[in-house]
Amino acid sequence: MSYYITAVGLGAAFCTTISFLPQAVKTIQTKDTSGISLLMYSFFTFGTLLWLVYGIMSRDVPVATANAITLVFACIILVYKIRYK
Amino acid sequence: MSYYITAVGLGAAFCTTISFLPQAVKTIQTKDTSGISLLMYSFFTFGTLLWLVYGIMSRDVPVATANAITLVFACIILVYKIRYK
Repeated sequence: MSYYITAVGLGAAFCTTISFLPQAVKTIQTKDTSGISLLMYSFFTFGTLLWLVYGIMSRDVPVATANAITLVFACIILVYKIRYK
Repeated sequence: MSYYITAVGLGAAFCTTISFLPQAVKTIQTKDTSGISLLMYSFFTFGTLLWLVYGIMSRDVPVATANAITLVFACIILVYKIRYK
């Protein structure tokens, strides 16, 4: 049972982390940020930074790693949203 | 130290969960989904569903609750993206 729970957790972390890659690529290529919420990416980027700090403080390597990657994508999207709104 | 770690984790969960609310509101009001990545919300919605299953299986109430809320917002944005692309 514990093996399946870990597998589901890893699948979840993979999907939610990698999901921001196609959004970052699309935003860089099209610079179309009109439908993207500035408030969302402000909260989300700050929240991801907190998750990274939480992962480091609690020595949780998967949480820290996944959020370090997501933070890069979120920052790119946030910067494009501010620059091309 | 453990108190601070928990506080950072709760702050992180609050920010990343609530961040999808302004995006859902904006998408519902404007129906402007041209800059939103379908691939992102496909992966993200599926990943959030997996996080919810993971939270339920591991009896982790905060993970299950946060992802149940996020799943509602993600589904709304995904449905609007598919309907108004």
